[in-house]
Amino acid sequence: MTQFINHKDRVVTDAIDGLVGSSGGQLARLDGFPHIKVVVRSDWDKSKVALVSGGGSGHEPAHAGFVGRGLLTTAVCGEVFASPSLDAVLAGILAVTGKPGCLLIVKNYTGDRLNFGLAAERARALGLKVNMVIVDDDAALPELPQQRGLAGTLFVHKIAGALAEAGEDLDKVTAAAEDVIARTTTLGMSLDTCTVPGSPKEQRIAHGHAELGLGIHGEAGVEQVAYTNARDAMAMVVEKLVVSSNTQPVVALLNNLGGTSDLEMSVLANELLNSPISHRLKYLIGPAPLMTSLDMRGFSVSLLPFIKSHILALQAPSGRTAWPGMRELKPSELMPVPEGLKPVLAAATKHPARRDFIKKCCTVLIAAEADLNALDAKSGDGDTGSTLSTAARALIDSLDQLPLADLSQLYRAIGLVLSQTMGGSSGVLLAIFFTAAGDASAKGKGPIGALAAGLERIQQVGGAQIGDRTMIDALRPALEGLNNGIEAAAAAARTGADGTSRILMAKAGRATYVSAENLAGNNDPGAEAVARLFEQMS
Amino acid sequence: MTQFINHKDRVVTDAIDGLVGSSGGQLARLDGFPHIKVVVRSDWDKSKVALVSGGGSGHEPAHAGFVGRGLLTTAVCGEVFASPSLDAVLAGILAVTGKPGCLLIVKNYTGDRLNFGLAAERARALGLKVNMVIVDDDAALPELPQQRGLAGTLFVHKIAGALAEAGEDLDKVTAAAEDVIARTTTLGMSLDTCTVPGSPKEQRIAHGHAELGLGIHGEAGVEQVAYTNARDAMAMVVEKLVVSSNTQPVVALLNNLGGTSDLEMSVLANELLNSPISHRLKYLIGPAPLMTSLDMRGFSVSLLPFIKSHILALQAPSGRTAWPGMRELKPSELMPVPEGLKPVLAAATKHPARRDFIKKCCTVLIAAEADLNALDAKSGDGDTGSTLSTAARALIDSLDQLPLADLSQLYRAIGLVLSQTMGGSSGVLLAIFFTAAGDASAKGKGPIGALAAGLERIQQVGGAQIGDRTMIDALRPALEGLNNGIEAAAAAARTGADGTSRILMAKAGRATYVSAENLAGNNDPGAEAVARLFEQMS
Repeated sequence: MTQFINHKDRVVTDAIDGLVGSSGGQLARLDGFPHIKVVVRSDWDKSKVALVSGGGSGHEPAHAGFVGRGLLTTAVCGEVFASPSLDAVLAGILAVTGKPGCLLIVKNYTGDRLNFGLAAERARALGLKVNMVIVDDDAALPELPQQRGLAGTLFVHKIAGALAEAGEDLDKVTAAAEDVIARTTTLGMSLDTCTVPGSPKEQRIAHGHAELGLGIHGEAGVEQVAYTNARDAMAMVVEKLVVSSNTQPVVALLNNLGGTSDLEMSVLANELLNSPISHRLKYLIGPAPLMTSLDMRGFSVSLLPFIKSHILALQAPSGRTAWPGMRELKPSELMPVPEGLKPVLAAATKHPARRDFIKKCCTVLIAAEADLNALDAKSGDGDTGSTLSTAARALIDSLDQLPLADLSQLYRAIGLVLSQTMGGSSGVLLAIFFTAAGDASAKGKGPIGALAAGLERIQQVGGAQIGDRTMIDALRPALEGLNNGIEAAAAAARTGADGTSRILMAKAGRATYVSAENLAGNNDPGAEAVARLFEQMS
Repeated sequence: MTQFINHKDRVVTDAIDGLVGSSGGQLARLDGFPHIKVVVRSDWDKSKVALVSGGGSGHEPAHAGFVGRGLLTTAVCGEVFASPSLDAVLAGILAVTGKPGCLLIVKNYTGDRLNFGLAAERARALGLKVNMVIVDDDAALPELPQQRGLAGTLFVHKIAGALAEAGEDLDKVTAAAEDVIARTTTLGMSLDTCTVPGSPKEQRIAHGHAELGLGIHGEAGVEQVAYTNARDAMAMVVEKLVVSSNTQPVVALLNNLGGTSDLEMSVLANELLNSPISHRLKYLIGPAPLMTSLDMRGFSVSLLPFIKSHILALQAPSGRTAWPGMRELKPSELMPVPEGLKPVLAAATKHPARRDFIKKCCTVLIAAEADLNALDAKSGDGDTGSTLSTAARALIDSLDQLPLADLSQLYRAIGLVLSQTMGGSSGVLLAIFFTAAGDASAKGKGPIGALAAGLERIQQVGGAQIGDRTMIDALRPALEGLNNGIEAAAAAARTGADGTSRILMAKAGRATYVSAENLAGNNDPGAEAVARLFEQMS
C-alpha cells in the first residue's frame, strides 16, 4: 500500500526529525543518524533519576512521543519493529544519566532485553547507577513464562515518570515500576493487520473475523474469533483480562492500535464503560493512540488494579500532549432538552386586507406551478413550481390561524408555516426570510425594512449574491425598488428575473451543475416566481 | 470492511455516549437521542458568550471532542456526514445561550448553513442574541464562489473560544472569527478513501496515485495526481496553498484525516518543516487528528497568516486533550553523541596462571564444537558449538591484550571480547555475565561472588529460571557448588546439564518452539558446555 514516507530506510529518521522539529524546542536528538536514533528532553539537567525507554519503532506515539517533563527522559528508537542497537541504548543512557542514576523501562522482547541489558552493564562499568525493569503485561497466553510488553507500558512510564520528576531516588522509582508491572494486564483485538513500510500488506484476517490476543508487531493473534460487533468484541477482551486480574478497582487504559477511527474508539469506550467490569472502572486513560502497531485497525485494554500513589502519579502534570491524561469516571449527566423547540403560533387575529393580499399572492404562485416546473426542468430537478404551490396552498389553509393584525407576528408565523410545509433548501431559506423579517419588525423596522433584513439574512445563510442565478436576482432589486412604489418594484423584479436567462454559469443552488446550453434563454424559476408575485401585486 | 460499531444507525449515539462517559464529568449531553445529539460543557453557567458548532459526524475529534473550557460550549452532531436537524441545532443554542448571546460556527455546507441558519432565526425570535459565521477555508477550487469548510475550522474554534472564555462580547468574538476565516486556507491529500459505517468501501484511488484537494466527506478530490513520496506530496499541497495565501508568517495546522499512522504523520511534519514555506512557519499545531474523515489515509495543511492576538488566543489554555496545543517552531537541537560508547580495553597485564586457565577453558569449548552442534541440532539451529568455539578462538587470540592481573578489568575485558566476537543472544548474555561480574568485582566482591552477580544479571535480562532448559540449569548449581570446591561445582553442573534432557518443554530461548520428542534424552547444549568446562577445570 502507498504510504506517506520517502523511503523505508529513512522512515524512522525522518519521523524523528519531524517529531523533534515540531516539538517547539521541547525535544532534541543525539547526533549519529542513522545508527543512533535517540530523542531526549532538551531541558534535562541530570539532577533527577532519568527514565530511559524505547525499542522498535512503529508504536508511535510510543516511545519518543512520551519524552518530556514527568514522563520519559529519553527514548532510544530502533528501526520499525526492531530493537535499537547496544550503542544506541548506551548513548541514550550516557546522554541523560547523572548522579541519581537511571531506570531502563524495557518491553519484554529478546532483542530489547539483550541490547538494553548489555548497555546497562556497560554504563555500570562506567560508574553509573542503572536499574532495569521488564514490562510483560500481555494477558494473551497466561501460561507462558515470558509475556510480551504491550500498552500497559504506559502505566509504567507515567507513574515512574511522575516519581522521578518529584525527585524520588532510583530504588523507589524502580520499586514503583516493578509494582506497576506486576499488576498490569493488557489484551488487544484487531480487525486487520498492519502495513509495514516498504512491505506488502498481509491479508490474514478474513472478513467477519478478528484476532484476539495481539502483539504489537503485526504477528498473528493467539486466536481468530468470529467478529459480530463492538459490544461482543469488548466483552471478549474484558473477559480474558478479568481471568488474569483480581477484583480490585482499576484504572483502564484504552489504546488505539493505530488505524481505528476516533468514531469507533468512542464506540469502544462506551462498550468498555458498560462492560461486565464497569463496576471496577474508576479511572480511564484514553481512548487514544498510545502504543500502536503502525496502522493496525485494533484496540487494546490495559487494566491496573491501583493503589492511591498510582493515582497521584497518573494525575501528575506532564509535558507532552501525546499523554491524554486520566479522568475519574463519573455517571454521565443527561440534561433535559430546553423548552421552546416547538415555536408557539401567536393567537389568530383579523386583518381582512392582509388576508386578501396573502391569498392573492398564493393564488399567483399556484397558477404559476406548471410554468415554474418547466423552467426548473431546464436548470434543476423540475419541482420549483410544485414546491411553491404546495406551500402556497398550505398558507391559504392556515389563513384563519394567522396573527394577521400584528405584522411582526405575521411574518414569523408565515416563516413557521413555510418551514413546516415547504421542502428543500428553498423552504428553509424562505422560512429564514420571513422569520428574520418578523424579528426586524419586532425591533421597530418598517414593513419594507423588515423584508430587507430578511433578505440580508438569507443572503448570509444561503451565500447567494446578485448574479448567482437565484431568486435573489429578482428579490433584491424588487425590495430596493419598493421604496419607489410597487410598480417600480415589479419592473425591477422583472428586469432581474429576465436577466437570469443570460447568466450562463450559476454560482449557487442546484443549477451550478447544469451546462450553459441548458441555462441559456431560461429564467431562473425562483427569480421568475418573485417577478410574477410583484407583477400581480402592482 | 468490518468496523468496531454495533449498528450503523447507532454509531453516532454510541460514540457520543462513549465520549461523554469517558470525559470524567467534563461533558454532558442533552436528552433526546436519537434525534437530538447535543454535547455540552457540564460546567457552563451561561455567563459568557457561548460557542455553538457541529455538523455531520465522522470528523472526530471534531466537533464534540472540542467541547470544553476555552473551546466550544456545545457541539450539535448529525449522523455520519449529514447535517444535524433544525431542532437539534436549536436545542443546542437554547441549552447554552445566556444574556451574552452565542456564536454559531458553521462549516460551509448547504445543509449546515440552512439548519443552523433557521435555528438562529428561531432563537432570535425567542429573544436571544445569535451570530453566525461560515467557515470556507478550502483552497482546492479558489475560483468557486463557495469554498468548503475544512480543518481550518479549528483555528476559529480555538481563537473564538479563547476570546469568549476571556469574557469578550459577542460582537468582538464574531469579528475575530470572521477575521480568522478570511485569512485561513486549507488543502488536503489522501491515498485512499474512507470507510463509511455500514457501507462498502469505494476503491477509487489506484495504487501509486493520490487525490489532491479533498473534502472531508469521502467525496473525490479535485484531481488525482501521481504519488511518489512524502516530500513531493507535501510540496504539492504547500504549492497550492501558497497561491491562495500571502507572504506573511503563518501558523500551520497539520491534520491527520484519520487513518494515517503517527509514524507517517511525523514524516509529513518533517516535510512541512522543510518545505518551500519553511521560512514562513512560525507556529505549528499538530500533527494530530483534528478534523478527520473517518479512517481516511490522508492529511491536510491549514495556514493562518496571523496577527499577535491570534497567537495569544491559540496559546490560551483549553480544557480538552483533543486540542494538541501549539508550539513555536525553533531550530532542532542536535546534541553530540556522548563519550564512552566504545569501551577502552584496560592496558594488558601479565598473570601466567590466569592466562593458562583461560586458554584451557577455550580449548575445551573448541574441542566440544561438534558435540555441541549435534545437541543443538535437536533443539535449535545447530550452531551452539560453532558459536562458542568461534568466541573461544577469538579469546585465545586476544590473550596478550588482556589485563590479566586485575580480575575486575579482566572480567570486563572478556565481556567486551565476547560482545564483539560472539553472535546471537548467547553472545550478548555471556557479555553481560562477564561485564556484570567485573562490575561486582570492582565493588569488592570476591571471584565467586562476582560470577554469582553476573549470573543474577543474565537471569534478569534473559529471564530464564532453573528448569527452563538453558545453560542456567548447569551454571547456577555450578556457581553455588563452587563454595565447596571445584569438584563439587563440576558435579553439580553435570547433574544440572543431564537434568535438561528430561525437561520436555523449554521455557526460554529457541527450544521453546521444539517438540517434546526432539528434546527428550538430549542435554541442552548451553548447559552441556558449562558442565564440560567445569569438569575440565576440576
